[in-house]
Amino acid sequence: MLLELRELQLNTEKYLDKEIELNGWIKKIRSQKNFGFIELNDGTFFNGIQIVIDDTLPNFEEISKLTISSSIKVYGKLVKSEGKGQDYEIKADKVEVYDKSDSDYPLQNKRHTFEFLRTIAHLRPRTNTFFAVFRVRSILAYAIHKFFQEKNFVYVQTPIITGSDAEGAGEMFRLTTLDLEKLPRTEKGDIDFKQDFFGKESNLTVSGQLNVETFCTAFKNTYTFGPTFRAENSNTPKHAAEFWMMEPEIAFADLDVNMDVIEEMIKYIVKYVMEHAKEEMEFFNKFIDKELFERLDVLMNSGFERITYTEAIEILKNAKQDFEYKVEWGIDLQTEHERYLAEKHFKKPVFVTDYPKDIKAFYMKLNKDRKTVRAVDLLAPGIGEIVGGSQREDNYDVLLDKINQMGLNEQDYWWYLDLRKYGSVPHSGFGLGFDRILMYITGMTNIRDVIPFPRTTKNLEF
Amino acid sequence: MLLELRELQLNTEKYLDKEIELNGWIKKIRSQKNFGFIELNDGTFFNGIQIVIDDTLPNFEEISKLTISSSIKVYGKLVKSEGKGQDYEIKADKVEVYDKSDSDYPLQNKRHTFEFLRTIAHLRPRTNTFFAVFRVRSILAYAIHKFFQEKNFVYVQTPIITGSDAEGAGEMFRLTTLDLEKLPRTEKGDIDFKQDFFGKESNLTVSGQLNVETFCTAFKNTYTFGPTFRAENSNTPKHAAEFWMMEPEIAFADLDVNMDVIEEMIKYIVKYVMEHAKEEMEFFNKFIDKELFERLDVLMNSGFERITYTEAIEILKNAKQDFEYKVEWGIDLQTEHERYLAEKHFKKPVFVTDYPKDIKAFYMKLNKDRKTVRAVDLLAPGIGEIVGGSQREDNYDVLLDKINQMGLNEQDYWWYLDLRKYGSVPHSGFGLGFDRILMYITGMTNIRDVIPFPRTTKNLEF
Repeated sequence: MLLELRELQLNTEKYLDKEIELNGWIKKIRSQKNFGFIELNDGTFFNGIQIVIDDTLPNFEEISKLTISSSIKVYGKLVKSEGKGQDYEIKADKVEVYDKSDSDYPLQNKRHTFEFLRTIAHLRPRTNTFFAVFRVRSILAYAIHKFFQEKNFVYVQTPIITGSDAEGAGEMFRLTTLDLEKLPRTEKGDIDFKQDFFGKESNLTVSGQLNVETFCTAFKNTYTFGPTFRAENSNTPKHAAEFWMMEPEIAFADLDVNMDVIEEMIKYIVKYVMEHAKEEMEFFNKFIDKELFERLDVLMNSGFERITYTEAIEILKNAKQDFEYKVEWGIDLQTEHERYLAEKHFKKPVFVTDYPKDIKAFYMKLNKDRKTVRAVDLLAPGIGEIVGGSQREDNYDVLLDKINQMGLNEQDYWWYLDLRKYGSVPHSGFGLGFDRILMYITGMTNIRDVIPFPRTTKNLEF
Repeated sequence: MLLELRELQLNTEKYLDKEIELNGWIKKIRSQKNFGFIELNDGTFFNGIQIVIDDTLPNFEEISKLTISSSIKVYGKLVKSEGKGQDYEIKADKVEVYDKSDSDYPLQNKRHTFEFLRTIAHLRPRTNTFFAVFRVRSILAYAIHKFFQEKNFVYVQTPIITGSDAEGAGEMFRLTTLDLEKLPRTEKGDIDFKQDFFGKESNLTVSGQLNVETFCTAFKNTYTFGPTFRAENSNTPKHAAEFWMMEPEIAFADLDVNMDVIEEMIKYIVKYVMEHAKEEMEFFNKFIDKELFERLDVLMNSGFERITYTEAIEILKNAKQDFEYKVEWGIDLQTEHERYLAEKHFKKPVFVTDYPKDIKAFYMKLNKDRKTVRAVDLLAPGIGEIVGGSQREDNYDVLLDKINQMGLNEQDYWWYLDLRKYGSVPHSGFGLGFDRILMYITGMTNIRDVIPFPRTTKNLEF
């Protein structure tokens, strides 16, 4: 009976003393004259299984000389192991070879730096760390979908290509099918984008929010989850040119509802990963970040604090700590401030609301004080901001004023303004950087190490 | 108690004679001197609910004059309705107005063409048809994730930006951050892409397959699901420049396993949608395509046929039907041929395998006859091809030969070739065009009408 390793490992009692077949790659091999041991893994489970081979195999000679990463098929019986390190093993009756791995396989059994492993991103998921990272990435993505789908949210795949270049969230990548060597020109001598694929200038999106807002006025509960792009020359461990964002948008919802959803979602997805990737999470807690479980425990089990920006500024001013950036009302909070609030002062996640309007985006709802907007950032111990959101401006005139004040082009927003003409409602939403929350959940500290094939400045391999 | 409409509609007995609150938009309104009726919907359920208003409301005058799409909050009691057309209604005790919709709201209660509705893509999900389309889109996307996650497949978010321009699947969009008015030049006078964001030429991906293959050699069971792009000037109802593709890749799997997974998946996702979007699917069957349920029934309940390309050619040659494109061994099957096989000959979905190598991609496994490759297309009644896949070439030398024969650049594929050096295994995968299958499941006939904000030639609004 051909099994997957996962099925076998989770049901060893069921298969004990049964004849089974297992495919896999050799993770370790050591052999002596008459017998040997192979650690085999087919990729379906974190922990491999030991295969015992001996010279009753007709091809023992060939098998005992196989290299790491060779692919084989094993026929044998699952038995209790008398050796140390495993409870069960497979006594092989027959071993077939798919392919002997070339001996220059770069992942021999020694430690490699993450920097080196980035240069072989096509092979690094075969290592323990990246095997764990990318399975957790998959499970986390699914947890997000599951959370929202079970609440009857509609998943909206907002467009990647956009004609807008003015969302103000950052530098954009331009897209074109024009021949750069023969750029067509208008009579005036400008580049004639009318001849480009879309008949106008086009860019890669920096956010799906404005698009998903339109759908929230049809479905009430919506979210988008997809790739977004920033052409920023930021060579830091936290920035990638291509990353995934999850952006829910909820109609008939004020900022309090928004915070309720954020808190419930964060707790849900962390719990889901802890339950569905036990082996992987234990690995991270043991080898990547020894405080990981402690931090995630706080996240799952505390009620998140809620304070205003103005209150946060007071707390920071009274803090017995020197900050690099001076604290005064009106500043954008820096990571040092955010971490002080979450780690030192509250010792748990904290929502900060009602930021000064000048440091926040045009679409955030203006408060009655006309100085602050209904923004919210969730700050978490060990990282700082992990979620940013707001109640949206639902008043047509106020929004139009803001668009003009910020020097944006009113014509680009006709459809966004329409939402405030035809049955405007209070609505709120937020954005969760998927790669950032994955870093938080795994303890990995460089965004390049949580994205399958990361795209950063001057880096576009694979 | 504030409820969502979905909760109310699915549990009317529970809330009968209870005081409830409901937000929503006015879908229809008719009123006389002392009373009136509003059809209200908050976006959470396909069918709205009737609100009865009368002049015991202090603001009856205002409410009775509200326009379509105005947003309100209703307080009242759920009661059995004595009128025709609904079993329940809400007798309003109080109605608050969020916003009276402007009277130029374009979606008044009359039929609009799909063409017109595309020009107001930000409002069209408020119509019955698009409300149904986009909820089904969401549920279908989730069904795909659920199917694969429950089988322990790892979701790999393959990159959107690629340095490759040679996958051969179609025209690509170029990406740049260079100033087009001042393109930097090398000493030789060429455009100096070393100065571009990634230090080289970059494009939008046409497929995640090659990338996901690398992960399948770590996890065995993998899939990617994300946007892909074609810069093709095809102004047809089936082509969009930006569309979503789902591409599974399975190690230790030959073409038979591949077909098993395709068949199981197709049946699963269609059943899932039928169960989770009952009202929407009934709407499609009634108003969009009266043969829809019949077609989906065949899909869910027949065993799919499996024939070779060579057998398919024989069947077509013997067909008592004239084809526009002449049938002979070696041709690429046209939609007319595909539909004949599925609709007329087999009257159910049919897998066609082992196509001539010259009409298929370089990475497909060469058969022993050296003339055909282990490709598979799934043909379905009413549409033709809906899935394409193959077993991949796992022999290093054969693959390298193919790359060279097809004039591709070997250097671009070093990492792809590596997979055949370090423990190569038989592996297979396929691609499902998400928007196309959504069209098939809803009966919608233009891809522009199943994508929230479609991107096509000369069309980049919103």
